[in-house]
Amino acid sequence: MAQKPSIPKGTRDFTPTEVAKRNYIISVIKKHFETFGFQPIETPSFENSETLMGKYGDEGDRLIFKILNSGDFLSKVTEDVLREKDSNKLALKISEKALRYDLTVPFARYVVMHQNEIDFPFKRYQVQPVWRADRPQKGRFREFYQCDADVVGSASLWQEVEFIQLYDTVFSDLKINGVTIKLNNRKILSGIAEVIGAKDKLTDFTVALDKLDKIGEEGVKKEMLSKGISEEALEKVQPLFKFSGDNFEKLSKLKQLLEKSEEGKKGIEELEFIISNLNNLGLKTARVDVDVTLARGLNYYTGAIIEVAAPAEVKLGSIGGGGRYDDLTGIFGLKDVSGVGISFGLDRIYLVLEELNLFPETVTKNLDILFINFGEKEAFQSLKTINSLREKGLKVELYPDAAKMQKQMKYANKRSIPFIVMIGEKELENNTFVLKNMVSGEQTTYNFKEIEEVFNQVNNQD
Amino acid sequence: MAQKPSIPKGTRDFTPTEVAKRNYIISVIKKHFETFGFQPIETPSFENSETLMGKYGDEGDRLIFKILNSGDFLSKVTEDVLREKDSNKLALKISEKALRYDLTVPFARYVVMHQNEIDFPFKRYQVQPVWRADRPQKGRFREFYQCDADVVGSASLWQEVEFIQLYDTVFSDLKINGVTIKLNNRKILSGIAEVIGAKDKLTDFTVALDKLDKIGEEGVKKEMLSKGISEEALEKVQPLFKFSGDNFEKLSKLKQLLEKSEEGKKGIEELEFIISNLNNLGLKTARVDVDVTLARGLNYYTGAIIEVAAPAEVKLGSIGGGGRYDDLTGIFGLKDVSGVGISFGLDRIYLVLEELNLFPETVTKNLDILFINFGEKEAFQSLKTINSLREKGLKVELYPDAAKMQKQMKYANKRSIPFIVMIGEKELENNTFVLKNMVSGEQTTYNFKEIEEVFNQVNNQD
Repeated sequence: MAQKPSIPKGTRDFTPTEVAKRNYIISVIKKHFETFGFQPIETPSFENSETLMGKYGDEGDRLIFKILNSGDFLSKVTEDVLREKDSNKLALKISEKALRYDLTVPFARYVVMHQNEIDFPFKRYQVQPVWRADRPQKGRFREFYQCDADVVGSASLWQEVEFIQLYDTVFSDLKINGVTIKLNNRKILSGIAEVIGAKDKLTDFTVALDKLDKIGEEGVKKEMLSKGISEEALEKVQPLFKFSGDNFEKLSKLKQLLEKSEEGKKGIEELEFIISNLNNLGLKTARVDVDVTLARGLNYYTGAIIEVAAPAEVKLGSIGGGGRYDDLTGIFGLKDVSGVGISFGLDRIYLVLEELNLFPETVTKNLDILFINFGEKEAFQSLKTINSLREKGLKVELYPDAAKMQKQMKYANKRSIPFIVMIGEKELENNTFVLKNMVSGEQTTYNFKEIEEVFNQVNNQD
Repeated sequence: MAQKPSIPKGTRDFTPTEVAKRNYIISVIKKHFETFGFQPIETPSFENSETLMGKYGDEGDRLIFKILNSGDFLSKVTEDVLREKDSNKLALKISEKALRYDLTVPFARYVVMHQNEIDFPFKRYQVQPVWRADRPQKGRFREFYQCDADVVGSASLWQEVEFIQLYDTVFSDLKINGVTIKLNNRKILSGIAEVIGAKDKLTDFTVALDKLDKIGEEGVKKEMLSKGISEEALEKVQPLFKFSGDNFEKLSKLKQLLEKSEEGKKGIEELEFIISNLNNLGLKTARVDVDVTLARGLNYYTGAIIEVAAPAEVKLGSIGGGGRYDDLTGIFGLKDVSGVGISFGLDRIYLVLEELNLFPETVTKNLDILFINFGEKEAFQSLKTINSLREKGLKVELYPDAAKMQKQMKYANKRSIPFIVMIGEKELENNTFVLKNMVSGEQTTYNFKEIEEVFNQVNNQD
């Protein structure tokens, strides 16, 4: 019985056009990763479960796809365990591997396993899919690509400077104008919590502050109060709610606010180094904006926090983010290795390019020339030249069957092929070919031996 | 507690050098897929289990990696089922998705699901990983890439001609000389079985014949007899055991042998079309060889059977294969769609290039210039020019910390960086820079504003 086929929810097939567009974005990102000195690595799609579990919080653990052990996986499970009917407990017994949830933990694992062959500081990039058992919704998938670049083994703030240049370079190359690179520092958030005497409430405080955009000043204050942050504390941070001005004005406001916090001052100093150097070096199209509400999974980052906002008109939110985490590899036993990195959100960037109509037309051109098939002898004559055209990098196809002319032309039209070549009985006899420009409709007859030259000219006109 | 990290058996981390080498092979293959008119698609890493199960035989079903349902996967499993402790039965209840086992079945599923938007004949390529729970051994992994090109919707034998040209083009471009492209046809095998009166023993017959290389004529005959093929039948196929001569001699021997089988004659005719056209068109470096012992998973192919043997000196066996299957999409309800395709074995090709030392040196060059870091002001001066060098496509890095000179030079040496640029206190003052050629050891001082020009020259010398 034939099945009506489908694919799992949250996954996608990519058509030739979609693959071409995705590859365009990926190739731009990779090109700049490489000119910035990053080297590619790849890690397996699945890891041992203990490598991943417990690294992303309880919610993360639930969203990790687990792979069933092969063979008779129940053979070593006791009747008692089965009788309990506890899915989590049984999963530990019948599944030892799990699909990659992000690229950062596998990278940390890689660094620890390969530490003796790596020349630190190690600048690596990685573009691979990850999987999450999240509820699928618009723009959120169960399989999606991450495009990450990280440096491990250097605490230098020049890395942060260069990462922001890298974002600027990639988005400028993709012709996305108007991205905003938001910058913050975990030490500034800690400093604020310290100054208002709510050091133990750092998470509550930042989670609430992060919502300023959405729920406004009053909403944020209400949430903070409900979490036990005092009225007095809120008064102290009042300047954060009207945090306007350029970056240097913001930094100077922060200096006043945090003058009594050593950690806070360190954060400001780091931010100032980055901002002033970027200011002097100049960016191509991006704008850098100090944003003290930016937190991004606070427990992870220890220094810089970076997030890229898409141009305001597309209303898509973040298209990239990253930051510094001082002890990246500690979980796997290699202490005191600082890491800093950024990630590009491929799916979101795709939507931005689509919405702003920024994909170059050439990206989806998948065939340059179709040779019409008039029969065995004519097809043979066509193939005699097709391979030399292909060697010039042209994408060339012989219609496989000597089908009716109308059918072949319909195919050419549907695939938007710019040129067709016709070698029929007459042309075979006269040693000629007919070139038809499918855009203008113009048809010209040439000598067969001129064919390479003709397409040299056509190619140069592109 | 720190874990000592490891990766699942049969999987691999790829270092920057390995990724660069793999990408080199993949990019050559993709380039030619595209000039031959193939378009890329991508399918999800996991499919619904029913899409994959039952498509690869019992052994295949066992080797498919199954993904555990998320959440409380036991909640709908009855106590009765649990009490049975039957792994296969339970797997059906707690797993609905499975990792892709090859690219052909997902492609068939894709064609059926997208049939209304596809312009047939559809030439697609796909380069993605697949997963098999096979016992890992030398050269056999649980995660590996397949590089497939297929055409669906045309029965034309020109496709077979072009696929062999494609193999020849790719392997010639990779500089692998001496590959042999072995050709057979399922109809010839059927014809032989028919002629010897063992039509019902086609599989036994071909499985035995396939071993001629390994166990010799006597061994094959012994096996055939043990499977119930008669002495008389063996006499009839005696010519197959001494099947020498060029392709046309072989074809003429087959014609004699199969003169009474319509199906066999059809197979010979097809083979003759392919061979004679290839002969007239010419191949770059590959040799085509009619091989009647070639079967390759007989139940799959219905026409041409193709396999590429690595150059004899590397003793690696097959580096690619494919063939025609007349009813590719029937399993998913779309009848009478003929498919023909080939696959490149990435891991094997990698080993061939490694063994024959055929990877171009440039492939693994991952950094062109390192700027030595002498401190904040000097680093800033360096960064002022680094981005314009990167825009020329050069891979450039600033050493992140103002570490000791010795440490930075050691890093440059270990990474085999061809050039270093030094801008120290003196150079900053004089507005100059020092270029050191790390191969010759030569050091030259230039004016800072000449830097782009200097590297234009250096770049052109490459």
